[in-house]
Amino acid sequence: MPTQRLITFTTDFGVTEHYVGVMKGVIYGINPGVAMLDISNAVQPFDLLDGALAISQAYSYFPKDTIHLVVVDPGVGSARRPIVVTAGQYQFVAPDNGILSFVYEREESVSVRHITSEHYFRSPVSSTFHGRDVFAPVAAYLSKGVEASKFGDTISDYVRFAVPKPKSTAANSWKAVVLKTDRFGNLITSITPAGLPQIFDGSCQSFKLSVGKAEITKLCSSYAEGGPGELFAILGSTGFLEISTNKGAASRLAAADKGSEVTVTIAG
Amino acid sequence: MPTQRLITFTTDFGVTEHYVGVMKGVIYGINPGVAMLDISNAVQPFDLLDGALAISQAYSYFPKDTIHLVVVDPGVGSARRPIVVTAGQYQFVAPDNGILSFVYEREESVSVRHITSEHYFRSPVSSTFHGRDVFAPVAAYLSKGVEASKFGDTISDYVRFAVPKPKSTAANSWKAVVLKTDRFGNLITSITPAGLPQIFDGSCQSFKLSVGKAEITKLCSSYAEGGPGELFAILGSTGFLEISTNKGAASRLAAADKGSEVTVTIAG
Amino acid sequence: MPTQRLITFTTDFGVTEHYVGVMKGVIYGINPGVAMLDISNAVQPFDLLDGALAISQAYSYFPKDTIHLVVVDPGVGSARRPIVVTAGQYQFVAPDNGILSFVYEREESVSVRHITSEHYFRSPVSSTFHGRDVFAPVAAYLSKGVEASKFGDTISDYVRFAVPKPKSTAANSWKAVVLKTDRFGNLITSITPAGLPQIFDGSCQSFKLSVGKAEITKLCSSYAEGGPGELFAILGSTGFLEISTNKGAASRLAAADKGSEVTVTIAG
Repeated sequence: MPTQRLITFTTDFGVTEHYVGVMKGVIYGINPGVAMLDISNAVQPFDLLDGALAISQAYSYFPKDTIHLVVVDPGVGSARRPIVVTAGQYQFVAPDNGILSFVYEREESVSVRHITSEHYFRSPVSSTFHGRDVFAPVAAYLSKGVEASKFGDTISDYVRFAVPKPKSTAANSWKAVVLKTDRFGNLITSITPAGLPQIFDGSCQSFKLSVGKAEITKLCSSYAEGGPGELFAILGSTGFLEISTNKGAASRLAAADKGSEVTVTIAG
Repeated sequence: MPTQRLITFTTDFGVTEHYVGVMKGVIYGINPGVAMLDISNAVQPFDLLDGALAISQAYSYFPKDTIHLVVVDPGVGSARRPIVVTAGQYQFVAPDNGILSFVYEREESVSVRHITSEHYFRSPVSSTFHGRDVFAPVAAYLSKGVEASKFGDTISDYVRFAVPKPKSTAANSWKAVVLKTDRFGNLITSITPAGLPQIFDGSCQSFKLSVGKAEITKLCSSYAEGGPGELFAILGSTGFLEISTNKGAASRLAAADKGSEVTVTIAG
Repeated sequence: MPTQRLITFTTDFGVTEHYVGVMKGVIYGINPGVAMLDISNAVQPFDLLDGALAISQAYSYFPKDTIHLVVVDPGVGSARRPIVVTAGQYQFVAPDNGILSFVYEREESVSVRHITSEHYFRSPVSSTFHGRDVFAPVAAYLSKGVEASKFGDTISDYVRFAVPKPKSTAANSWKAVVLKTDRFGNLITSITPAGLPQIFDGSCQSFKLSVGKAEITKLCSSYAEGGPGELFAILGSTGFLEISTNKGAASRLAAADKGSEVTVTIAG
C-alpha cells in the first residue's frame, strides 16, 4: 500500500471565501486518500513576493515527498504557464510567475516542467479559476503517483525574480528592506546571516540599524531578553533578521511596515 | 469496508472562535473515520443570503455523497426546524430558514426531512448552539451510514426565498444587484447567463452596465484582458457576472459594494 | 492497530501566517497517522486569559484521549517550562504560564510534568519558535503512544492564575467583568451559575445588570426570545452568562467590550 501523500496550500484566496474549499473538494474527488494542510491562504492578493516568502519559510518543515500547491496567480487566463517543479525532496504545483523564486535559490536540484497534458484538467477550464480547474487536479494526480514527466516537458526559461538582499551603500553601510510584518508586529527584514554576516558573527564591535523612526543597536537571541518597550534585532525562526520587541508590536513602536527601508551601519 | 465520507462546513461562526472546532470534535467523537473540509466559516453573521450564496457556489465541486453541513442560524432556539436534505448527489444538514434556496433551485430532485429523532442529538440540547448539539451529531450519524429517513419525515413546506434575478424596468433596461464583494474586490452581481442571455450570447451590439460611480461596456473572458485600472464585466467562476479589474479591486474603483444597484441597458 | 489519535490546536499564531501550518507539517512528519483539528489559532497575541478561555470552552467536547496543543507563549526562549498535562480524559501540551488555569480548576485529576527529554525536540531548538521545535514534536510523539512519563518528572509548582469570579461589593451587589466579545458581539462575562446562582435559580425577584451604557433586567433562555434591539442576559453555550441581543451585536448596543466592568444588583 502506498504511503498517504500530503498536499499543502499556499494561496491568496483568503480565509473568508469558498475558493480553497472548492479546490480541496476537487482534490478529494480525485484522491480521497490524500492528506491536506494549509500553510497560508492569506497571502496578500496578487502579491508574488509575499507568497514567495510564505512558501519559502514553510516548505522545508514538511516531510519528504510533500506536494506544495502554491497559487498566487494574477495572470490567470493569460499565457503564463502552469508548472510542476521537483526541487530537493519536494514537489510544487504553481503558475510560472516567480512565486517559487526563493525555493529555486535554496535548492540545488531543481527540475521545472511546463504542464501541457490537458486531460488532467477539469473540463471545461474556466479562464478565471485555474486553482480549481488546473492546479488542484494536477496536484491530486501527482498525489496518486502520476509521474511529473507525464504532465509536460522540462523548461529552463522559467520565471524567477531576484531575492531582495542588502546592498552596500558605503564602506560600512548597507540598505535593506522590510519584507513583511507578521501578526505579532515583528518586522521581517531582507537581512540574513549569509547576506550580512558581520551582524551575526561577532566580528564587529557594534552595529546601528535604522528603520522607520527607530534606531536599534542590540542583537538578542530570544524575545525574553528585551526590556519593556525596547526594540532589538533577532534572527527569526525563518532565517531572516527581524526587528522585534518583547510582548509587543515592533511595527507600532518603530512606525514601520512592509516596504520600509532599513539602513545598517557597522563599526569596523 | 464503506468508503470514507466527507462532511463540509459552511457557517457564520468565524475563523477566530472555537465554535467550528467544537463541532468537529463532536463529529470526530461519533465518527473518527470521517473526513472534514471547510467551505467557509466566514459567512457574514446572521446573513442568510451570504450563506446561501457560499454553499451554492461550492457544493457541486465535491464528490458524490458529500454531506454539506450549513449552519447560519439566527433563529437558534426558536421553532425553526432542523432539516436533512437530499438534493441531487448530495446531502445537506441545516436549519430550515432558506439557507439552501439556491440549491433547491438548481437541483431537480430534492427531498427535505424535518429532523425529529432527538436521540441523535447531544444531550442536553442547549438553546444557543444547535451547531454543536443538533446539526453536528446528525451529520456525523449520516456519515456513519444512518439513512436520512431515520431522522424524520419529509416535508414540503420548507422555507425558500426567491433568488435575486435581474428585473426588467423598460424595453432594454434591467435592474440587478451586487450580491457580494469577494476578497479580491470583484463585485459579484445577480446577473447570470440564464437571467440575462443578451449580454453573453453576442446577440446585442453593445451593453452598458452602471454600478456605483462606474460605467462598464466591456465583457472580457479573462482578467488579463483588462487594461490597467479598467473596469470590465466577466462571467465569474461561479456562474454570476462579475465586475472586475485586472490585478486590482473593482469595488474600490467603482465605489460599490454588496447591495449596490446595477443597471443594465442593452442596445438592441 | 491503535486508534487514530487526535491533536487539536489552540494558539495565537493567527490564520494569516504559516506558523500553524509548519507545526502541522512537523507533526505529520513524525506521525502521518494522526488527525489534527483547529480549536482556534486567533487567540489575541500574547493574551493568556484569552487563550485560557478558548481551550477551557472547547476541550471537553473532543473525544477521550484527545491531545490538546495550546501555544500562547510570550515567554518563549526564557526559563518558563514546557509541560505535558494529563487532566481527566485528556492530555495537554503547553508552556507553563497559566494558560491551562481553567482546565486545572475544572478537572479533579490533574498531573503536570516538566518536559525535559530533549531528544524528542527538533534539533537545533530555536529560541523564538518552540511551537515548531518543542511543543509540536512532543504532541506528535504523545500521539504515537509515548507515555507522558517519558517526557519528564511531575511537578506541583506549575503556574496557575485565578479564574476571574464575581466579587461581592455590598449585601446584594457584585462586580464582574466582560472576559471576551465573540464574533457575534455577545459579551461573555465572568458570571457562572456556580459563582452567582441567584441569577439563574429563580430565587430572586429580579436583578439588574449594568455594563457599558446598558442596563439589563431580563434573563432569556434563547436568543429568539429577545425583541428587536433589546439587550438580555443568557447562559451561553460555554457556561458563562452572556449579554446578547437577537440577531445583532450586543457589544455595539451596550458600548462595551472585553474588560468592561459588569455590576449586578439582586433584589432579595
